[in-house]
Amino acid sequence: MIARLCILGVGLMGGSLALALRHAGYVDEVIGSSRNEAHLRRAVELGVIDRYVLDPAQAVAGADVVVLAVPLGAVAGMCQRIRGSVTEETVLSDVGSAKGAVVEAVRSAFGHVPSGFVPAHPIAGTERSGVEAAFAELYQGHRVILTPLPETSLEAVGRVRGMWERTGAVVEETDVVHHDLVLAATSHLPHMLAFGLVDSLARMGNHDEIFRYAAGGFRDFTRIASSDPVMWRDICIANRDALLGVMARYEADLRLITRAIEQGDGDTLLKIFTRAKCARDRFTIG
Amino acid sequence: MIARLCILGVGLMGGSLALALRHAGYVDEVIGSSRNEAHLRRAVELGVIDRYVLDPAQAVAGADVVVLAVPLGAVAGMCQRIRGSVTEETVLSDVGSAKGAVVEAVRSAFGHVPSGFVPAHPIAGTERSGVEAAFAELYQGHRVILTPLPETSLEAVGRVRGMWERTGAVVEETDVVHHDLVLAATSHLPHMLAFGLVDSLARMGNHDEIFRYAAGGFRDFTRIASSDPVMWRDICIANRDALLGVMARYEADLRLITRAIEQGDGDTLLKIFTRAKCARDRFTIG
Repeated sequence: MIARLCILGVGLMGGSLALALRHAGYVDEVIGSSRNEAHLRRAVELGVIDRYVLDPAQAVAGADVVVLAVPLGAVAGMCQRIRGSVTEETVLSDVGSAKGAVVEAVRSAFGHVPSGFVPAHPIAGTERSGVEAAFAELYQGHRVILTPLPETSLEAVGRVRGMWERTGAVVEETDVVHHDLVLAATSHLPHMLAFGLVDSLARMGNHDEIFRYAAGGFRDFTRIASSDPVMWRDICIANRDALLGVMARYEADLRLITRAIEQGDGDTLLKIFTRAKCARDRFTIG
Repeated sequence: MIARLCILGVGLMGGSLALALRHAGYVDEVIGSSRNEAHLRRAVELGVIDRYVLDPAQAVAGADVVVLAVPLGAVAGMCQRIRGSVTEETVLSDVGSAKGAVVEAVRSAFGHVPSGFVPAHPIAGTERSGVEAAFAELYQGHRVILTPLPETSLEAVGRVRGMWERTGAVVEETDVVHHDLVLAATSHLPHMLAFGLVDSLARMGNHDEIFRYAAGGFRDFTRIASSDPVMWRDICIANRDALLGVMARYEADLRLITRAIEQGDGDTLLKIFTRAKCARDRFTIG
């Protein structure tokens, strides 16, 4: 049970967490804080939070659990504002898609990693955003990855794990570097390719016709290019090193395909396409 | 109406065309030909064709309409085998995903472009292949692109258009070069990116875990990497020039994203992602 939960940034992610925990009866009081008072008032009306406090330092004071749910690009600034109000007893967590940058922001603001800090990444989302889009079932059946640090207390990990399990999520643990690499490969890289493809086609001549011809596979392929540009800018900056690493590998692998096409090397193309098809058929469903 | 239709290559595409026309009562007799007699026997059992003739030159003789539905890589050889049996009265068409290479194969085999030749590309397919996968509704509501040549007779175009309309397809016309460029951009390029991505990830360490983490967006994105490797090898070879052109543009555009990430240039990233999102949201549905 959580006596007082403080959500910093009451949007889709933070709002859905608050709703899920309130529905589960796992929290006595939810306090929200964000830059936009109208959004916070709406969050109270929607029953997402009990009340709000505009100043994040005041909002955090006295909370058992604090969840940073602001955009990745705002995490560092928020850490600076709350550092004086977070005690050694406070459990501090977040929802960011890249963990190394969040850990650095916390370390930089606090001068060390507080024992109550448990970096977390719930792998869930919708194409909508904001508190109006929040719903209690967002995390059901989705993975939440915790990346505890050597400084993190086992008790804090247990509390954050218990909180997420109450939302219906499946909680796993790994380390920061591994998380950032795996997410760079399976999520951040595909988004770059899809944004790049749609942008490339949009800048060709006849792009109305190009898009009109686009068949089913293309629609699936580019759906992720409809994601929030600001969020993805922040992810690129936050997970820069891991993302650049997988992009460099990908660009080299794509050049192998290009060269095989240039040389009319059907055997190499067949080998690559077969290996890819087998890997996908083996590891994915649907 | 078609008195005698000859399908060369009775797989998913050719078989579905035959079934659709038989169901519509638009054809009196369907003759099939392919390398594999067992497949042809099965096609007769399934009611896809009336009878088969193993030698394609004999199969073609006396047909009003001949449809080349062999894999793209087999088109040139097939043209060589049937050239003596195609008359000026024969309507000859195909189902290839790249049109320039098919036109070259026909021109090379016949020494000229027969006036009855109407290159066609039905934009439809499933993940399954072979005559067992054929069904009469495959083309309903899908686009079929005709790319008639200066040598092509209007009458032949009309007959091929009428045939495809009877399958429930929406028939459009454009020229060979334009078709090959648009398809390279909207279909062939995305397939290369998806094959390349899955292959790149499959060759990283921990690829079991990489694929296990792969979330919803990744599954959509890579679905097209489950397509038939042989077909895609043939398409790469057949549409080489157009595909290399769009791949070069794409690689340059992707490098702009890579450079912006390297430089921490959030403004450029936001501009590219926003442009892509707007283009996709404007031009696609779902």
